[in-house]
Amino acid sequence: MKRNSSLKQDLEILRNTSKELKLIHGILSLLGWDQEVYMPSKGVLGRGKQTAFISELYHNKLISKELGNSIEKLEDNKDKLTRNDKSLLRNISHDYKKAVKIPSEVVKELAEIETISQKAWEKAKKESDFKSFAPYLSKILKLKLEICEKVGYKNSPYDVLLDDFEPYMTEEKLDKLFPKLREETIKILNKIKNNKINIVKKKINLSMPIDKQKQFTLLVLKKLGYDFGAGRRDEVEHPFTTWISANDVRITTHYYKEDFTKALSSSIHEGGHALYEQGRDKKILLTGLDEGISFGIHESQSRTWENFVGRSKYFWKYFLPKLKKLYPKFKSIQEKDLLLEINEVKPSLIRIYADEVTYNLHIIIRFEIEKDLIKGKIKVNDLPEVWNSKMKEYLGIKPKKDSEGVLQDVHWSCGKFGYFPTYSLGNLYAGQFFYKMKKDIPDLNKRIEKGDFACLLNWMREEIHKFGHIYTASEICKKITGKDLDAKYFVNYLNEKYGEMYGF
Amino acid sequence: MKRNSSLKQDLEILRNTSKELKLIHGILSLLGWDQEVYMPSKGVLGRGKQTAFISELYHNKLISKELGNSIEKLEDNKDKLTRNDKSLLRNISHDYKKAVKIPSEVVKELAEIETISQKAWEKAKKESDFKSFAPYLSKILKLKLEICEKVGYKNSPYDVLLDDFEPYMTEEKLDKLFPKLREETIKILNKIKNNKINIVKKKINLSMPIDKQKQFTLLVLKKLGYDFGAGRRDEVEHPFTTWISANDVRITTHYYKEDFTKALSSSIHEGGHALYEQGRDKKILLTGLDEGISFGIHESQSRTWENFVGRSKYFWKYFLPKLKKLYPKFKSIQEKDLLLEINEVKPSLIRIYADEVTYNLHIIIRFEIEKDLIKGKIKVNDLPEVWNSKMKEYLGIKPKKDSEGVLQDVHWSCGKFGYFPTYSLGNLYAGQFFYKMKKDIPDLNKRIEKGDFACLLNWMREEIHKFGHIYTASEICKKITGKDLDAKYFVNYLNEKYGEMYGF
Repeated sequence: MKRNSSLKQDLEILRNTSKELKLIHGILSLLGWDQEVYMPSKGVLGRGKQTAFISELYHNKLISKELGNSIEKLEDNKDKLTRNDKSLLRNISHDYKKAVKIPSEVVKELAEIETISQKAWEKAKKESDFKSFAPYLSKILKLKLEICEKVGYKNSPYDVLLDDFEPYMTEEKLDKLFPKLREETIKILNKIKNNKINIVKKKINLSMPIDKQKQFTLLVLKKLGYDFGAGRRDEVEHPFTTWISANDVRITTHYYKEDFTKALSSSIHEGGHALYEQGRDKKILLTGLDEGISFGIHESQSRTWENFVGRSKYFWKYFLPKLKKLYPKFKSIQEKDLLLEINEVKPSLIRIYADEVTYNLHIIIRFEIEKDLIKGKIKVNDLPEVWNSKMKEYLGIKPKKDSEGVLQDVHWSCGKFGYFPTYSLGNLYAGQFFYKMKKDIPDLNKRIEKGDFACLLNWMREEIHKFGHIYTASEICKKITGKDLDAKYFVNYLNEKYGEMYGF
Repeated sequence: MKRNSSLKQDLEILRNTSKELKLIHGILSLLGWDQEVYMPSKGVLGRGKQTAFISELYHNKLISKELGNSIEKLEDNKDKLTRNDKSLLRNISHDYKKAVKIPSEVVKELAEIETISQKAWEKAKKESDFKSFAPYLSKILKLKLEICEKVGYKNSPYDVLLDDFEPYMTEEKLDKLFPKLREETIKILNKIKNNKINIVKKKINLSMPIDKQKQFTLLVLKKLGYDFGAGRRDEVEHPFTTWISANDVRITTHYYKEDFTKALSSSIHEGGHALYEQGRDKKILLTGLDEGISFGIHESQSRTWENFVGRSKYFWKYFLPKLKKLYPKFKSIQEKDLLLEINEVKPSLIRIYADEVTYNLHIIIRFEIEKDLIKGKIKVNDLPEVWNSKMKEYLGIKPKKDSEGVLQDVHWSCGKFGYFPTYSLGNLYAGQFFYKMKKDIPDLNKRIEKGDFACLLNWMREEIHKFGHIYTASEICKKITGKDLDAKYFVNYLNEKYGEMYGF
């Protein structure tokens, strides 16, 4: 009798803590969103203190002894819990156990170094001067390794870092996925290089006034199902999506006058993230289950919309006439030319501008470098050389300067080791989910051509969105597709799409 | 030795708590600002929970036992404290002692009723149906009276409510100020009615495209000294100013196409509040001293800029040519006609549209009603009748319906009894400060004519802004002017300005 009543109390503690953490998380998001979007420049000092205060509040709530005791007792009685409470326990326990192991001095030191380091990276990138950045990177790496040792791991310290972005993902698992993806990608690249059909790529002028770009992307976002009553869109330098509360999921865009497809792709991408967050079952709102599963699963949603849908001929069958109506200067653009333009496969130096095929090679290079850095197999000072030789080997091109090479991404400068793989995991999950979706909706392409995006969104809602973080990434993959994650679905998608385009 | 070291600790607790309360206050402000300005409509539920969570955090920090003990010990050793620490102790102790006496159930119940009541008021105002609103008002009144009894008072329960907005202000003090102000105002009104010169008021078309209004108000705000690097301006339905951090003080405006003077006055008014907050001494930033003294003192700053400056002929000597340059359709507007238009004295029904002279009668009516309501001398159901008869007595006009009478203001519906007097206190403080300012800067008017607003702002900065909440309202009044607050300065200002205009 007493045991049961105490279990009930522990469950209350678990649920309430998760609710409060969620509230605090939303407040932190607002502080961050406002800082990027509307905060006046001189507000940065005050905002830093507010953010640090709320972050500490979050951390202290997460590592509270009361919560720790409840987690322990609930884990001893897991069988008595419902599915959702089990999942809640798993999620909170995962974060709790990691957080309590990391000394707060290390967290603080890391936060301070990351701020300085990001500024040093900005300067180094501008001047293409890796050497000036290397000492900062070494410091961050040292602290990250310290964290890995404190948290503990089975096989590789890198697992601790991967787990920050993709819970339960390991180096070992990636070593089974990525080499195959790399080989298959290189095969496709070779097929494209040796393609048999003669592709005449017409130069198209993609420039469009920004107000027209705003109108068009708005029209697309609404049509895809983004709810502007539960979100909004603003302009920033580097687009992102932010969850403030269940019915307040905001996206941001950057417009380039000379090429409307950039803001379009990015709007669809961020819209994809937002649709995931807007699609939860009402029953789990404002609980610790009301969140995306992982960075990889989140990315699968945004990339399905951005690439699988937004770069397909079916999408443009529907939207090109709308685009021409809105902006008659585009009236002479042919569908096939536009598709060639937005789908051209060509090895290039910069990850964020890479096409769907070569993109994963950029990620695999970073993954291979990260894991060797963590293992100490390569040193920080060797990075430019390793980077360049891998670029040459996988993509056949080599950056002339480090700003186009090892210095191009912000991630490492702010300690985000283990983040890059989630981009490719997103592609792989997207490939496997899309395969199943097309089986479930056999006339999917025809529907898209007619502007029926609801069938696609509903599938995602029912299969993925509504569950929030009830399942883990591998659980949801198995639940939906019956299989573990496998690169073959994404590879098949590439072969099919680009085979048709390049005639192989 | 031990006593000293403990005193030091208590001082640390006082200072740290005040810093944290300040941080939390800024976060609450951002939540509120965002809700009014940019939050999507469906975000309201989540925002309510976030705001309640942070409000509770604030409340719990304020009523903490640790703080209470430190306050007690510090108050026993007040002589050993510096001026600023004494002030900090006074401010925090004032809030602490009030907060600990109010049962949290009452706070919660009141918050809930206020939310419903405001909605009921909106409906009642729309339908001019006081009876439907009366039960809500009665409930709020009952809870407010309960709070007054819990907090305790010397002479009148109304003092507890006044003190929420104007610390240390009492009914007794207002009873010495307001009747005189009322009599003198009625005298001025009679003089205007019986004026001897023939005023020919030309009808002016004040309509201006909204983008031009934005440009003009921007130009004015910059010229007056508002720092856009430490603030920003957005559009809302009901303008307000918000302090998010020391270098992040935001204003809001509403534009009316048909009359540019509305957005202008309101911009200058909110700008005046913001200038007060932007003007602190750096040494007190992010402490409990970094805040305005009271609603009355705050209002004195906004009203000095809005009325004393913004409606003066000196202001328009400088700005009318700039306005005409920006919007040539105004080129035929004569300075004297514009001044008559924006300064016309005429009894009217709605407080927020009242002129500088009649405005205080609107406030005095509300003050007299509030104190009698609290005393039980009048009942909620009698409100419309009392309102209308006072309007007739003081202003000579009577509303035809309650939406233009007792239902016009939102304040009572959200429990803000004791707020209204601060508007008139603002006028009186402004009058007394302005009198001194003109003595200190004898050529003030000439300087304003030439666009030198810096001399005025610097005076305010040195005399008022930089001190934040180091002094109380009566202390700063005495410090600046050598006298206690007296209505005569404001009355003299009115007599001088309107005597010139209306020839008496």
